[in-house]
Amino acid sequence: MAKKKSAVSPSRGEDYAQWYLAVIKAADLAENAVEVRGCMVIKPWGYAIWENMQRVLDGMFKATGHQNAYFPIFIPISFFEKEAEHVEGFAKECAVVTHHRLEPGPDGGLVPAAPLDEPYIVRPTSETIIGASYARWIQSYRDLPILINQWANVVRWEMRTRLFLRTAEFLWQEGHTAHATEEEALAETRLMLDIYAEFAENYMAMPVVRGEKTAAERFPGAVSTFSIEAMMQDRKALQSGTSHFLGQNFSRAQDIKFQDRNGKEVYAWTTSWGVSTRLIGALIMTHSDDDGLILPPRLAPAHAVILPIYRNDDERKTVLEYCDQLKQGLSDQSYDGRDVQVLIDDRDLRGGEKTWQQIKRGVPMRMEVGPRDVAADSVFLGRRDHAPQEKKGVPRQQLIARVADLLAEIQQHLHQRALDFREAHTREINSLDEFQQFFKSPGGNEIHGGFAISPCVEDAQVEKTLNALKVTTRCVPLEQEDVPGKCIFTGKPATHRALFAKTY
Amino acid sequence: MAKKKSAVSPSRGEDYAQWYLAVIKAADLAENAVEVRGCMVIKPWGYAIWENMQRVLDGMFKATGHQNAYFPIFIPISFFEKEAEHVEGFAKECAVVTHHRLEPGPDGGLVPAAPLDEPYIVRPTSETIIGASYARWIQSYRDLPILINQWANVVRWEMRTRLFLRTAEFLWQEGHTAHATEEEALAETRLMLDIYAEFAENYMAMPVVRGEKTAAERFPGAVSTFSIEAMMQDRKALQSGTSHFLGQNFSRAQDIKFQDRNGKEVYAWTTSWGVSTRLIGALIMTHSDDDGLILPPRLAPAHAVILPIYRNDDERKTVLEYCDQLKQGLSDQSYDGRDVQVLIDDRDLRGGEKTWQQIKRGVPMRMEVGPRDVAADSVFLGRRDHAPQEKKGVPRQQLIARVADLLAEIQQHLHQRALDFREAHTREINSLDEFQQFFKSPGGNEIHGGFAISPCVEDAQVEKTLNALKVTTRCVPLEQEDVPGKCIFTGKPATHRALFAKTY
Repeated sequence: MAKKKSAVSPSRGEDYAQWYLAVIKAADLAENAVEVRGCMVIKPWGYAIWENMQRVLDGMFKATGHQNAYFPIFIPISFFEKEAEHVEGFAKECAVVTHHRLEPGPDGGLVPAAPLDEPYIVRPTSETIIGASYARWIQSYRDLPILINQWANVVRWEMRTRLFLRTAEFLWQEGHTAHATEEEALAETRLMLDIYAEFAENYMAMPVVRGEKTAAERFPGAVSTFSIEAMMQDRKALQSGTSHFLGQNFSRAQDIKFQDRNGKEVYAWTTSWGVSTRLIGALIMTHSDDDGLILPPRLAPAHAVILPIYRNDDERKTVLEYCDQLKQGLSDQSYDGRDVQVLIDDRDLRGGEKTWQQIKRGVPMRMEVGPRDVAADSVFLGRRDHAPQEKKGVPRQQLIARVADLLAEIQQHLHQRALDFREAHTREINSLDEFQQFFKSPGGNEIHGGFAISPCVEDAQVEKTLNALKVTTRCVPLEQEDVPGKCIFTGKPATHRALFAKTY
Repeated sequence: MAKKKSAVSPSRGEDYAQWYLAVIKAADLAENAVEVRGCMVIKPWGYAIWENMQRVLDGMFKATGHQNAYFPIFIPISFFEKEAEHVEGFAKECAVVTHHRLEPGPDGGLVPAAPLDEPYIVRPTSETIIGASYARWIQSYRDLPILINQWANVVRWEMRTRLFLRTAEFLWQEGHTAHATEEEALAETRLMLDIYAEFAENYMAMPVVRGEKTAAERFPGAVSTFSIEAMMQDRKALQSGTSHFLGQNFSRAQDIKFQDRNGKEVYAWTTSWGVSTRLIGALIMTHSDDDGLILPPRLAPAHAVILPIYRNDDERKTVLEYCDQLKQGLSDQSYDGRDVQVLIDDRDLRGGEKTWQQIKRGVPMRMEVGPRDVAADSVFLGRRDHAPQEKKGVPRQQLIARVADLLAEIQQHLHQRALDFREAHTREINSLDEFQQFFKSPGGNEIHGGFAISPCVEDAQVEKTLNALKVTTRCVPLEQEDVPGKCIFTGKPATHRALFAKTY
């Protein structure tokens, strides 16, 4: 049987890791900054996805009472020495600023001069620097809660990088809140987890499991960490957002104290939560296929692209006029609170090449318009969630009237498809033998079972078994259906069911 | 005569520099990050102004065909060695990253480890790093123009810092474009200058002079630099936005070449342009008074604040219900494409204190509502562009119907007031003697004449005279009314009239 040729090479089945990079390249989303180790350049199409994510998330944060602010990018080393676990987790691989001047060097180049008394770290996360402000701002219970979010770049000197998933510099938001009571801080932690889950499910069309991390996977310095976990098409899990309950750990280390209603001086309860440009990686790996990127309409920079087709100047005039009217008609429609976003791709390229470019860029709807379509007052419509060949003529007025419904349908279809995939590759497993079989990759490729949900306890022996299998505990899902049986790793009475998976 | 007490101390007349800082503090806009030299914390009210600026500018950029993208924060030192003038201008005081790890030190703390082969600079501006991408992306004239903007943080190790005006780290946007022809690049440079001027005049309500910089004031490496210059209330000039025509200087240094329509390999023509959080400083100094911040409605995070007044729980219930209805009625109105933004300030503070806080925060309209106002179905209205005492009762329905007009009136009033001030302190001067008198500060305080417009030439003697007077050439205004006479500094035939002022 002849192998079906796909627009992106290699295919998912051939080499999943390389397929991912090929999709990014074909959609022109980002590239490695060859001159700056581990950093990326986010190109306009990729950045426009991030802007849409920002717009939606920012609206959700503000609707729940949060405000944006901005704190310094530099953190004095001494700040990192305060919270012991946090140091352990974050202060190892980071960018260190040691000088504040360049001077001509002996060989004609420039060399660092003017050493700093105390070196600075480029923020890997901002708990410590923001905490220093909170310590100044908070005196009384009347100053609480403080509900602040920051959109910023952060740097972690990762050794092995991968576009969007793990880069030295990345963009994110980090929420940092301080509260008068433990209950309130815990409620905030859970609220933000729910907001992330809502965003992932309803905007990214990406099903997620909400759960709590085990001690081994916890944020350094946190009392508890919650995350949303999504299944990628290689059946691995991608942690897509985290929300941390920090208890009084950071407020003790940083002296964030206040007078409570009774005049007693107590430490504040703090939280932090974040999502990053990693979400773009999650989006790519959840929906894309062997023909490239597939964008859920609610986050797509363009909902539709019109592809005019003509052979001469006469046809060109007629076709482009029709396309302009079509665009206007579609743009007057509203989808998900925005005008429908339409591009006309009239670049001087062969028709086939243009169509394939737009397929690879993941635009939800393609509309081809040639002279015959103009004559018939119709449009040749292709949906990105269907096969490229699957196109059909649709009367223009009908298309305009239905465009919002069609986009909603595509959004829903992508979510259902991803959910079906996850369900098909998630299994409740109650024996170690079955667990081991599930995570074996037959034939030596990377594909394995997927998500396992198994009764267990938290201890060193469990971790050891998991390490040998290259499997991690993703989380303890919030929804625990029944009292579990015995831990499949130790035979001890299980305390919970956990979600296990290979991961990035 | 008893001195009128103002809400902010010192007053502008007493100490302008300290007044500026007092306004920032009283409005809770920002503060120095005491732990990180020269950096600032932008607090929620200040950041919300920046968000409004971003929203408007971003819309203007996109409406003129620009797209956003994101490039690495780090720049290898070697990049800075390529463009000689640019090195000279930028590579001196900057943050240098030399290590990528922290390790436990001998005295228990953390010390930098793992030195980098080539140190990185934290970007002071991104021409060089973005140019490296453009050199890869541009092969043919078909790839041009590239019209990209970046919203980012940048770092310049300034020795003397001042909140918003000059800080080690600040936020900005930087546009970087590449074109096939000189004409097109020049047109882009001027287009962006005009966009900045439009933003300043129509949104910030801040009159500006558009002009070209002299060689001494040019961006390092540029062929020509254009700027908008605004007069602050101490009659000094503040450069508020710049647009640079870079010619082929950067493309030569970075090898940004393409094949033109004739198949010939040529260098691209590039531009760059930027505005920063400095605009918040400009906004503050243009409009604020001795009672604190005054915000132009088009950029105000809140258009109106409702201040409920009551003495007991019964009154509280009635008054708050009325306030909620009032807020709803106002929010249903639209001003400048947004719903009217209304806050209710029901904090547990004395009424007078609350009112003064909102005055100091610069909210355009204050609406006091007590039981008698509820009974009369009216509101006690104060405008921030009028004196605090100047308040009057307005029937609720009338206020709701007129709120958008009132906001437009305040916006217009602020612009006119600033324009009148500038006009009153701008003089055409045709003799050196008069020029010197104009820039003398009588009584040793900082106040002097303001803006002088004088015929001149560009040469070393002019610079020397200006240095002695601590006056700078702000720009050569684009509108040159007539052929000028003789240079007031040298007696040579003048080539132009320039705008002279003291500056920040």
